Amino acid sequence: MKFSVTVTLKKDVLDPQGKVVQNTLLNLGMDNLKSIRQGKFFEIEIDEKDEEVAKKRINEMCQKLLANLIIEDYKINKL
Amino acid sequence: MKFSVTVTLKKDVLDPQGKVVQNTLLNLGMDNLKSIRQGKFFEIEIDEKDEEVAKKRINEMCQKLLANLIIEDYKINKL
Repeated sequence: MKFSVTVTLKKDVLDPQGKVVQNTLLNLGMDNLKSIRQGKFFEIEIDEKDEEVAKKRINEMCQKLLANLIIEDYKINKL
Repeated sequence: MKFSVTVTLKKDVLDPQGKVVQNTLLNLGMDNLKSIRQGKFFEIEIDEKDEEVAKKRINEMCQKLLANLIIEDYKINKL
């Protein structure tokens, strides 16, 4: 069973990496760019038949390792 | 108009960062994990009314800066 996880910085957390990307794109002439924020993306394959159980496991992975819950949010999607 | 872009390594490209995450999760006892690959995620807001035009601009951003097309693929989604 395959899932994707996106980890993004919370709204009020500064995103210096995204800022650099934004400035670079503006310098490249993309003047209608309003904002860009960067996050992490994971594609996870798990050996589990029950979707509910699989989601629980992925959730556990996010909480234990993939996301820093103090400054980041995460979203899990089935692929 | 808001879009999300995910940039992932092509299938045959090694993903050492993902491998480290995978080993760490296995050490944490997630034994039904089959594979995990890491990528980048961007949330882009663009000042453009026409969805087609906006998508073209995002596409341009990906090709020029966000993705390295030799080793990476990218996907654009409207949010």
